[in-house]
Amino acid sequence: LFEGVDHIGYAVPDLEEALALHTGRLGWRLEHREHNEEQGVEEAMLTTGDGLGARVQLLAPTRSDSPIARHLERRGPGVQQVAYRVRDLEQVSAELRRRGFRLLQPEARRGTAGSLISFLHPSDTGGVLVELVQPAATGGTHRDVTVLD
Amino acid sequence: LFEGVDHIGYAVPDLEEALALHTGRLGWRLEHREHNEEQGVEEAMLTTGDGLGARVQLLAPTRSDSPIARHLERRGPGVQQVAYRVRDLEQVSAELRRRGFRLLQPEARRGTAGSLISFLHPSDTGGVLVELVQPAATGGTHRDVTVLD
Ligand SMILES: [Co+2]
Ligand SMILES: [Co+2]
Repeated sequence: LFEGVDHIGYAVPDLEEALALHTGRLGWRLEHREHNEEQGVEEAMLTTGDGLGARVQLLAPTRSDSPIARHLERRGPGVQQVAYRVRDLEQVSAELRRRGFRLLQPEARRGTAGSLISFLHPSDTGGVLVELVQPAATGGTHRDVTVLD
Repeated sequence: LFEGVDHIGYAVPDLEEALALHTGRLGWRLEHREHNEEQGVEEAMLTTGDGLGARVQLLAPTRSDSPIARHLERRGPGVQQVAYRVRDLEQVSAELRRRGFRLLQPEARRGTAGSLISFLHPSDTGGVLVELVQPAATGGTHRDVTVLD
């Protein structure tokens, strides 16, 4: 079902501060930055080492009714989501539904860098908010995605 | 500093149940299983896809005073830790200390499959419990580690 862990999402109150911590003091590299108004999030993708492994995604809320704002309110800053990469989101979603998993929304949404994403219900995955992500360049990996800055 | 994300640790109340969910219904493969009495944990490492990416580590408590038991009590099941792989734990720990990060224990401990591990204080990393892990076979990756079962 899953090609691998695409990224781990950290909820952060302030994106610039979190970027300074991760790129300045922890040695991560900024791969991509983006504002996603639909999700109410300002985000940054970070890589380390050879850049081929799972990435860290920093997620800061842009409005108080966004999922990240609610996560910060209820649980504080920290891991908010774990994203598993899939080749074909529609097919994997259908298969997971057949196996009894619930998806948070009926339709896939637009994720980082033109990807397609869906979320599994945390009650069905042992308390983990699992994002399913199909990178923009179908059949490729996220390395094919254009880096905007 | 970091070669990549080694694994993401999920706190689970029951290891067999979590294994059934992850390997039976979510398609992960069991790579390694281990009982770590020092940490009070029964654990399983899972891979997916080409098996080269970040893994999922299922962590079940073996006693009520273990870190995993405390996590389940306070926060419920879900992501408990994110492990970053390093080549030389002693050197990276010293560098991080120089940069103002606190480690939870003064000395490195034994982690999964003969690895060496340390933890950064979550207050210094934006609420994320970061494990630093140096695989058993120094200079290699965790693929070099002998799988015991
Ligand atoms: Co994400
Ligand atoms: Co671990």
